[in-house]
Amino acid sequence: MQLTADIGVDLGRFAQTLEASSRIGAGREGGLARLALGDADRDMRDLFVQWCREAGLAVRIDELGNIFARRAGREDDLAPVLVGSHLDTQANGGRFDGIIGVLGALELVRRLNDLGHTTRRPIEIVNWTNEEGARFSPPMICSGGFAGVYERDWVLARRADDGPTLGEELQRTGYAGDAPVGGFVPDSYFELHIEQGPILDAEGIDVGIVTRAYESHGFRVQFSGDTAHAGPWPMERRRNALVAAARLCVLVDDIGWDFAESGGKSTTARLVAWPNKTGIISDWSEVNVDIRHEDPRIAAIMAERVLRAVGEAAARAGCTGEIVERWNWGGEFFDPGLIAGVREQALRLGHATRDLASQAGHDAYFLARICPAVLIFTPCRDGITHNHREDVDMERLRAGLDTLLHAVGARADA
Amino acid sequence: MQLTADIGVDLGRFAQTLEASSRIGAGREGGLARLALGDADRDMRDLFVQWCREAGLAVRIDELGNIFARRAGREDDLAPVLVGSHLDTQANGGRFDGIIGVLGALELVRRLNDLGHTTRRPIEIVNWTNEEGARFSPPMICSGGFAGVYERDWVLARRADDGPTLGEELQRTGYAGDAPVGGFVPDSYFELHIEQGPILDAEGIDVGIVTRAYESHGFRVQFSGDTAHAGPWPMERRRNALVAAARLCVLVDDIGWDFAESGGKSTTARLVAWPNKTGIISDWSEVNVDIRHEDPRIAAIMAERVLRAVGEAAARAGCTGEIVERWNWGGEFFDPGLIAGVREQALRLGHATRDLASQAGHDAYFLARICPAVLIFTPCRDGITHNHREDVDMERLRAGLDTLLHAVGARADA
Repeated sequence: MQLTADIGVDLGRFAQTLEASSRIGAGREGGLARLALGDADRDMRDLFVQWCREAGLAVRIDELGNIFARRAGREDDLAPVLVGSHLDTQANGGRFDGIIGVLGALELVRRLNDLGHTTRRPIEIVNWTNEEGARFSPPMICSGGFAGVYERDWVLARRADDGPTLGEELQRTGYAGDAPVGGFVPDSYFELHIEQGPILDAEGIDVGIVTRAYESHGFRVQFSGDTAHAGPWPMERRRNALVAAARLCVLVDDIGWDFAESGGKSTTARLVAWPNKTGIISDWSEVNVDIRHEDPRIAAIMAERVLRAVGEAAARAGCTGEIVERWNWGGEFFDPGLIAGVREQALRLGHATRDLASQAGHDAYFLARICPAVLIFTPCRDGITHNHREDVDMERLRAGLDTLLHAVGARADA
Repeated sequence: MQLTADIGVDLGRFAQTLEASSRIGAGREGGLARLALGDADRDMRDLFVQWCREAGLAVRIDELGNIFARRAGREDDLAPVLVGSHLDTQANGGRFDGIIGVLGALELVRRLNDLGHTTRRPIEIVNWTNEEGARFSPPMICSGGFAGVYERDWVLARRADDGPTLGEELQRTGYAGDAPVGGFVPDSYFELHIEQGPILDAEGIDVGIVTRAYESHGFRVQFSGDTAHAGPWPMERRRNALVAAARLCVLVDDIGWDFAESGGKSTTARLVAWPNKTGIISDWSEVNVDIRHEDPRIAAIMAERVLRAVGEAAARAGCTGEIVERWNWGGEFFDPGLIAGVREQALRLGHATRDLASQAGHDAYFLARICPAVLIFTPCRDGITHNHREDVDMERLRAGLDTLLHAVGARADA
């Protein structure tokens, strides 16, 4: 059966649910600071699990803390349709990024409950652990673990920038589940997310369909030097690891500017040094570098320049530099069938759509490696994200929520 | 009376005392990490106070935690001869920097006790709080408070980079004393310190006499920008405060290199940004900049270039930049009479001396503003300091210790 076009989400209920989420882990001026597996993320998880149980869903948690909430299907042995995103945020995060994908999935299940409609396939909502990578780098490691991109034990051993490992924080928060990581192939994966770019907002289109992802290369780089007195120690004997890190940061910024006209971006998002104190030269530093370009060939050129920059920055500061970790994503990996299905449902509901390339990383990228996946974008005001001013017009969000409801419903009944 | 030239310190006792100090706040491979008013600094203070009491000294602690240990004089109403330095260290500090000045003063008092010799003037040993500035910036704030350079309440309000204020840490460690800050003018001030430069070591001279200090300018700079997603946010809209800080760090390093031939140095010793996390652009950063040159006119030119660099770094990163604090020291301020006295005693003991300019900051600079002061240097191996490999040959150190004993003894009996 197909849901008739007049059926939509309960936007008031969704807004209320989102509002409750927005009160957990309050950040700056209405934003959120709900970093993965911190106390606020734990509180949000607790509330989300309670909501899922109230909706009659069977909750299970895997060894990476990924939360699955299952609505049985008529043919319950069939592989489930997986719908979700993440509830963690950046340190100066907004109320929408990731969250609307999880709470949108919850709303669609609640709506199906209202209608008393049992789909053919089971539907599972998922909340992926640590999508942002704000505490545990790199990002998207737990959906990556689910999809077999990362080893479970490697993920558990990732250390937060404030000390504990991901495994220890799972234990502390009570989210070290016993379900095995992965172990089943979903029928399909749907994710609703804000665009994190300005295009839909500027063009007045409410449903974006992601057809491919910007090529992104990530690097974790470490420099080693030697401590000395910041006063007397001669410039020519200095092996200043903070200077090496700063020089890399500047060189990386320059790379972004060199490719800015064609939409390239580069960032050193994190720089730490030790001892990093007045009066002493630092002998150790670490930086996280990130470059992105729509064209994989240009991204490869930018990545090559990062490698050269590491050597140049180290040499200029008398240090040694080493790339201790690399990660990469991008390309075309979303399922043409699911894309067509989403477009069809959106049009049937009267919403114009637009194909987009995603510039940010998403859990959907890793899911697409193991099952058909699709990523739906809703507008966000002026493209502002990872900022407390992140905002979405609730009426414009309705289009994405309704499209998710109908597309998932259709897939689960197919 | 004058001590005869055959009288010297008990080097074995001094070495034992230094060894006990070296066990408190163990850092890397034999070095120390005894940051001001941390637990290790408290333990060291406790032991030092015990040692002073065992030597019959009357201990008082002022409101900035400066510890004074008094040995009465024959004419006890006369202003005391003050002798000391600091017991705090950098995060990767050595066992000698500052420490030999305090423990050397203790040894000279113990030696006078051995001799049963009461000097005409009282002698006071002093341990200044937070000389290093490693937790509470800027450095030398408590000797500065004593000398009236800084207001007591301003000093107490300095915040450690790990959170609490200096006043709170004084309370916590039990070193918020009740003696008023300053309030008396010492007869004179003597400080023994390692050179923190390579000259004495290279030239085989054991007693350096500091005649002037390198001109040093310190700056605390803050940049403000805006957070955004490290992926999609276009380069031309970025206001990346970490990039501003990194650009300043590089520009400052360049200034040092431009003046390296004439011995100039520049350092960004500390750089912090917020949120400083993977995936997000930082909207706030702070850097501590330090430039030094022997020639005050050149130092002024370098400082002027730092000011321009702040503007340039901010502009390049789309941020605003502000110098929130400046400090400065340097010049010729040591007392010609005391310098002559130290040189005379060293020569009488058979030690060649060498006049030096100090490149590092010292509490003696601030004391020199209120009383005759002198700073005696001993060699340190290869000039290495603010490093766990800081080392001093104990036999070469004897010359400085004996010179301190005789110079202070002579002054206290004059």
